[in-house]
Amino acid sequence: MCRWMAWSGQPVLIEELLFKPKHSLIDQSLHSRMGVETTNGDGFGLGWYGTAVPEPALYHSIAPAWGDANLRELASHVESHLFLAHVRATTGTAIQQTNCHPFRHGRWVMVHNGVINGFEQLRRDMMLAVSPDLFPTIQGSTDSEVLFHLALTYGLEQDPVTAMERAIGFVEATAARHGVEKAIQASIGVSDGERVWAFRYSTERASRSLFVSAEVSAIKELNIDNPRLARLRDEDRLIVSEPLADLPGVWHEIPESTVMIVQPGPDEQRPFEPRYEPAAGNGAPATPGSPRA
Amino acid sequence: MCRWMAWSGQPVLIEELLFKPKHSLIDQSLHSRMGVETTNGDGFGLGWYGTAVPEPALYHSIAPAWGDANLRELASHVESHLFLAHVRATTGTAIQQTNCHPFRHGRWVMVHNGVINGFEQLRRDMMLAVSPDLFPTIQGSTDSEVLFHLALTYGLEQDPVTAMERAIGFVEATAARHGVEKAIQASIGVSDGERVWAFRYSTERASRSLFVSAEVSAIKELNIDNPRLARLRDEDRLIVSEPLADLPGVWHEIPESTVMIVQPGPDEQRPFEPRYEPAAGNGAPATPGSPRA
Amino acid sequence: MCRWMAWSGQPVLIEELLFKPKHSLIDQSLHSRMGVETTNGDGFGLGWYGTAVPEPALYHSIAPAWGDANLRELASHVESHLFLAHVRATTGTAIQQTNCHPFRHGRWVMVHNGVINGFEQLRRDMMLAVSPDLFPTIQGSTDSEVLFHLALTYGLEQDPVTAMERAIGFVEATAARHGVEKAIQASIGVSDGERVWAFRYSTERASRSLFVSAEVSAIKELNIDNPRLARLRDEDRLIVSEPLADLPGVWHEIPESTVMIVQPGPDEQRPFEPRYEPAAGNGAPATPGSPRA
Amino acid sequence: MCRWMAWSGQPVLIEELLFKPKHSLIDQSLHSRMGVETTNGDGFGLGWYGTAVPEPALYHSIAPAWGDANLRELASHVESHLFLAHVRATTGTAIQQTNCHPFRHGRWVMVHNGVINGFEQLRRDMMLAVSPDLFPTIQGSTDSEVLFHLALTYGLEQDPVTAMERAIGFVEATAARHGVEKAIQASIGVSDGERVWAFRYSTERASRSLFVSAEVSAIKELNIDNPRLARLRDEDRLIVSEPLADLPGVWHEIPESTVMIVQPGPDEQRPFEPRYEPAAGNGAPATPGSPRA
Repeated sequence: MCRWMAWSGQPVLIEELLFKPKHSLIDQSLHSRMGVETTNGDGFGLGWYGTAVPEPALYHSIAPAWGDANLRELASHVESHLFLAHVRATTGTAIQQTNCHPFRHGRWVMVHNGVINGFEQLRRDMMLAVSPDLFPTIQGSTDSEVLFHLALTYGLEQDPVTAMERAIGFVEATAARHGVEKAIQASIGVSDGERVWAFRYSTERASRSLFVSAEVSAIKELNIDNPRLARLRDEDRLIVSEPLADLPGVWHEIPESTVMIVQPGPDEQRPFEPRYEPAAGNGAPATPGSPRA
Repeated sequence: MCRWMAWSGQPVLIEELLFKPKHSLIDQSLHSRMGVETTNGDGFGLGWYGTAVPEPALYHSIAPAWGDANLRELASHVESHLFLAHVRATTGTAIQQTNCHPFRHGRWVMVHNGVINGFEQLRRDMMLAVSPDLFPTIQGSTDSEVLFHLALTYGLEQDPVTAMERAIGFVEATAARHGVEKAIQASIGVSDGERVWAFRYSTERASRSLFVSAEVSAIKELNIDNPRLARLRDEDRLIVSEPLADLPGVWHEIPESTVMIVQPGPDEQRPFEPRYEPAAGNGAPATPGSPRA
Repeated sequence: MCRWMAWSGQPVLIEELLFKPKHSLIDQSLHSRMGVETTNGDGFGLGWYGTAVPEPALYHSIAPAWGDANLRELASHVESHLFLAHVRATTGTAIQQTNCHPFRHGRWVMVHNGVINGFEQLRRDMMLAVSPDLFPTIQGSTDSEVLFHLALTYGLEQDPVTAMERAIGFVEATAARHGVEKAIQASIGVSDGERVWAFRYSTERASRSLFVSAEVSAIKELNIDNPRLARLRDEDRLIVSEPLADLPGVWHEIPESTVMIVQPGPDEQRPFEPRYEPAAGNGAPATPGSPRA
Repeated sequence: MCRWMAWSGQPVLIEELLFKPKHSLIDQSLHSRMGVETTNGDGFGLGWYGTAVPEPALYHSIAPAWGDANLRELASHVESHLFLAHVRATTGTAIQQTNCHPFRHGRWVMVHNGVINGFEQLRRDMMLAVSPDLFPTIQGSTDSEVLFHLALTYGLEQDPVTAMERAIGFVEATAARHGVEKAIQASIGVSDGERVWAFRYSTERASRSLFVSAEVSAIKELNIDNPRLARLRDEDRLIVSEPLADLPGVWHEIPESTVMIVQPGPDEQRPFEPRYEPAAGNGAPATPGSPRA
């Protein structure tokens, strides 16, 4: 179990949102209120989009986020209009940089809070289902990284929602075949540097919490004296596992089995339904767990 | 604030006491019940005495104890008749191996749970009071390491109780001179490989908790079916910041302002009273904070 | 490319052989003379057998061996009659503890100096060939760890030489199928705590150097005044990538395409010939790269 | 002994100068040609000035520079008009982030290649001479950090050249008093974000190498086809311990006992002469090693 946040909006010093708010993600690394684990001290990751190059930069650390001097330096000197941050509580896999989120492929990044149950049993079939040309880029040992590669195999870069529906559908079908129940728990953030997809889903339909900040115009009618709020602009959106305490009233809970799409122009909210279809021609298996034709 | 434990007795695999008991020190690193901080994830240290050489070995790690693979390996393969372990929650100084306890000088080691208030203000005077020949061996930046060197300056190796009384007396006098109140909070463990001194003291007389296991003969009359207890021998003693949950009834609280001495033969318990005397000829200052004559 | 050493003999403090000899393995981590890379600073590993439990202990570190304070502590306090140590120079895979040698399975450990060429291309087929019940224990991303699991799949615990011949045979066949030349470079050490197998082999028959110390009785006739030599006993054997400088005249080069078996009683030397046979019933593939029947 | 570089000029992606040139600083971390140590694998540091805030950011790592994934990410995504980078080869002090250069105070940073001989003996007197209000900010255990604090004590922020002359003068006087010869070896880089001071000095007048790139207009007359050169502008300056191989002909050696000042407008070169004068009112000692009046 983990905690994560994403920012999409005006460029800000990362620390403004990562460290300074009350009950910030860094606070949550020590004292989570809504997570299954109260301590998320098994690694930290940050992926940010800047102005120098289009690809996102990654910072991965196995030190707990609350005590990482380099992270404080980075966050207090680097500005970004879109970043995702993640604090990790391992469910058993090794604490190493290659297991830290976000995972990256070209301009795409993904963070995941949750777990694939019985991953030890499912890992081989899941890795087999990854497209052979993507296989070499799996560097760590987490369920999340394999899920990311499954989603890439199913076309994440072309159609993120469908790809994630098929990736999770594959996981559920594979779990069923192995007799594993409650296959997946997931709140997932994905971005290409322009949009952010926030997925909330679990096989048992009792997913980890996930919140998005409301439209600023609506909020401003309610709140008057909050300086952090005063600086928010209409297009600014925060997505968080747990609400920041100094922005009360700002949060909409993302509903169960839903994907929220934060993007230029009106945001979008859609039902999320895993699909068990075979892939077509992009290296994914014709049937779950079987070799490619 | 930190948590620590010490074992003196029959040789045991370190994991038997460090990992396996309910509410073990490793559990306390994630979920302390009695500490000021609930998470002690800012470094781990182990000092153990073995059979190959008389000097103790140290293992210092900046990874949280609960997730440190090397620590699990060590603890499950190394036997020791006397060891001290420490989980750290920094009060601000850097997370680095040289700030991990225990600190060592020859055959002597020390662990400390607590804090010297206003250490930033007092640090220079405290370091000045350390004997110049000991000064070069200060490697980190903690209050605890300087306190250890003060105690060495005052003769820890000859008379540990008096030396610690004078070291803490010096700290209190220096704090008073700087207008710092509640100078020190301390539960301290010291060993030379044969005995363990466990000090419990704070300027405000409201010290962190500290417990020692009772004599086994007395306990065995009370408890019958506990397998861990059944393996304890008469000379075996555990000292812990917080009781291990699977040995209920075993624990004596070490009283406020007291030093407990665990040793071959009957153990000893004495009042602990800081002294503000000048040193004589061993490099310590004639008056607190002044240069050596 | 890496460097390694193994000791089998009387119990010694590990530092006696790991740190103290001239041109020790730790020296080689900074200044290798015979390696392809002169610096082996990308991680260190030690696997040692002790007296407390039959399984070997592991110490894995991503700090360069020459500056690792915990390694110095361990090596100067722990005695072992059989240990393997390894300094790593990565050929591209991540520097993380799960990529440090030795790899372990039950009582078995393996270290590897060398490389599987085109591993990115071959990795998927190699991992597929690993027995599904061993698959979940692959934790890192190195070619060496997958090779170890292939050898386990082919029966390392029953017949190490045949298993390694088949594992490497499989690698060569898979490489050939992918058009990869010079499939493997390898000097490999394997142990079960009683014996050490030292393999020297490469597809191009130009393998990395590997040396074993000669029988002590023969050496003692030649050398008279070397104190380190004077302490050696008849059963003591050192295996090293590069000779230790303060034991000149002691070393036999292990020939190309040979396995040396150090064991109680007379040691043994055999030709090493990779085999391309299919496996029988233990989860390995019927033909290289194909799915299990 | 260490290696360092500094850039002052047009904003560049840090990797353009830190990683991409032939014989870059990262190459020098593995294979230095002109250094006393060929390997500089005991930590890395980067201090860069950006556009978001005036204070420089620091990145300190105890992983060898050549294998540090976070460093590659940073360097390939962050632009800076002025940065200093440093690879460390320890002369004995601990490998920890607080011992990594650059050291920082407000807008000022310093890197140091060299050594203060007999630092164990001199450390106490040097630390005593540091202004008490600066004393608490000493976090590590290096000679370089104490030298930086001495220079700050002597007024680095007001007059860097005089302050460094007095700091090194104090070191030499203190060394002489302790009977230590060849007190200091130093190539030092200092910056406030606008200018860079590059000091080359050693007590024995045989200082480590230090080079500065020539004025671009002069170079361009000589070189025609070098694309890296073609991108240089008139105000751009590189300072390096060892010349980058793909900019031959560009380098001026900074003379012995000289400070080079890179700044807007014409650069400046001055003789550097340590001074043994007492301080006036800023907390530094009236005579070397004595307590403040």
